[in-house]
Amino acid sequence: MAGCIFCKIAAGELPSEKIYEDDEILAFNDLYPVAPVHALIIPKVHIDGINMAKEGQEALLGRMLLTAKKIAEQKNLKNGYRILTNVGEDGGQSVKHLHFHIIGGRKLEAKFG
Amino acid sequence: MAGCIFCKIAAGELPSEKIYEDDEILAFNDLYPVAPVHALIIPKVHIDGINMAKEGQEALLGRMLLTAKKIAEQKNLKNGYRILTNVGEDGGQSVKHLHFHIIGGRKLEAKFG
Repeated sequence: MAGCIFCKIAAGELPSEKIYEDDEILAFNDLYPVAPVHALIIPKVHIDGINMAKEGQEALLGRMLLTAKKIAEQKNLKNGYRILTNVGEDGGQSVKHLHFHIIGGRKLEAKFG
Repeated sequence: MAGCIFCKIAAGELPSEKIYEDDEILAFNDLYPVAPVHALIIPKVHIDGINMAKEGQEALLGRMLLTAKKIAEQKNLKNGYRILTNVGEDGGQSVKHLHFHIIGGRKLEAKFG
């Protein structure tokens, strides 16, 4: 989508520290990490947020979660991690392109909302 | 799995405030809500956490996310929400049966890790 920075990253028009890429999914390090490990997993197709995901996209969404799990393994997050996605203003969604955060590498805050 | 409270809830052996149920998925209100809306979405099959999800379970995982989205719509979370899953001690995972939290109904904490 024109003007979407994650679409530009997915298209290679903006740089990112890539962790994983396939035809449908890209994972890269968050530019503003909140923990020692903080990656983002996005679909290459533009979806505004999980609130705009549709029937028929189950497999894509599930693959994004399994990608997050694999990244956690690669990053050696044996003690645990958190996967989350924010929607809208109440959720604190910063970029209006669906992304899952995967964060770990330290004891995370017990308060998650 | 014997001794798993979410397996017991899925089997109807322990009570819950059900929001959604189908053959594979159950959603219910969190007993200890951290926000006006705080629901949990679980697979009926026992999976320890997202770290134990396997290839072939993509559709189930994706359906859990779409279920979360639908619950957000039903609960009228127009201003946004957060969906997350915790893994292990660092993630603060309380019950060792995969569950997605869906939280909303107020401005959520900007700090999510």
